[in-house]
Amino acid sequence: MSETHQPPLQPAPAAAGGCPLCSPATEAVLWCDRRCRVVLAGEAGYPGFCRVIWQAHVAEMTDLAEDDRAHLLRVVLVVERALRDLVAPLKVNLASLGNQVAHLHWHVIPRFADDAHFPDAVWAARRREGVAHAVDAAALAERLRGLLPVE
Amino acid sequence: MSETHQPPLQPAPAAAGGCPLCSPATEAVLWCDRRCRVVLAGEAGYPGFCRVIWQAHVAEMTDLAEDDRAHLLRVVLVVERALRDLVAPLKVNLASLGNQVAHLHWHVIPRFADDAHFPDAVWAARRREGVAHAVDAAALAERLRGLLPVE
Repeated sequence: MSETHQPPLQPAPAAAGGCPLCSPATEAVLWCDRRCRVVLAGEAGYPGFCRVIWQAHVAEMTDLAEDDRAHLLRVVLVVERALRDLVAPLKVNLASLGNQVAHLHWHVIPRFADDAHFPDAVWAARRREGVAHAVDAAALAERLRGLLPVE
Repeated sequence: MSETHQPPLQPAPAAAGGCPLCSPATEAVLWCDRRCRVVLAGEAGYPGFCRVIWQAHVAEMTDLAEDDRAHLLRVVLVVERALRDLVAPLKVNLASLGNQVAHLHWHVIPRFADDAHFPDAVWAARRREGVAHAVDAAALAERLRGLLPVE
């Protein structure tokens, strides 16, 4: 980890067919294994907004084998647990939409009463400028490594 | 099931503290067991929009024991499977937000290119009037009963 506690930008996984989740330009990867990776989403106003991205290009949860579904959801809930422990959000939002990029990924979003959209979804119209609640990315990455030993 | 293939409105579970998911006025219940229930959300423009509601009043997935998490997520994914089989959506959206009602529930939303919001989330501004893609609620309930024998 760098002194600024920002995770390093890492080279993209092998490119495939123009999908931005198969071939991202750069990503702030907090944790990964051969099946999925956890990244900071980098969404304005939401420093703790994480994404859990399945490495292979599949669209839906029910396209995965049972064991893979369980693994991905375990990782999603470990990210929820780590964010609750580190930033104590009022609520955690979990979502797998994929309407714009149909490559399986989960949004894990710590929400606060004074963020830009609360109590609406982050995909609704902004209600206010909003407070961006910081997260210590190095501590988050360390917590994930502790909770999720790589297979 | 009635002749109109609408699931019957059922009496609310035991009321508790004014929470609308603890004490709903009426619900179109498709399937339930002692831990969770699947209902038609009744959202305008989205006839196939289902909710999976945890029966007990808890807020977050990580408030549940491991076995309960697995059970709830299994039910969510069976609803996804049944909707894919019955209405063949372009994409399925899964989300557990709870900012407005902090009682654990999942949205399972079949999405189509010509629905009111696609490719945005259903919580974004409407893009068009949109086509409401019908679902046969009786067939959906039957499919859920087949895939999820009640414990």
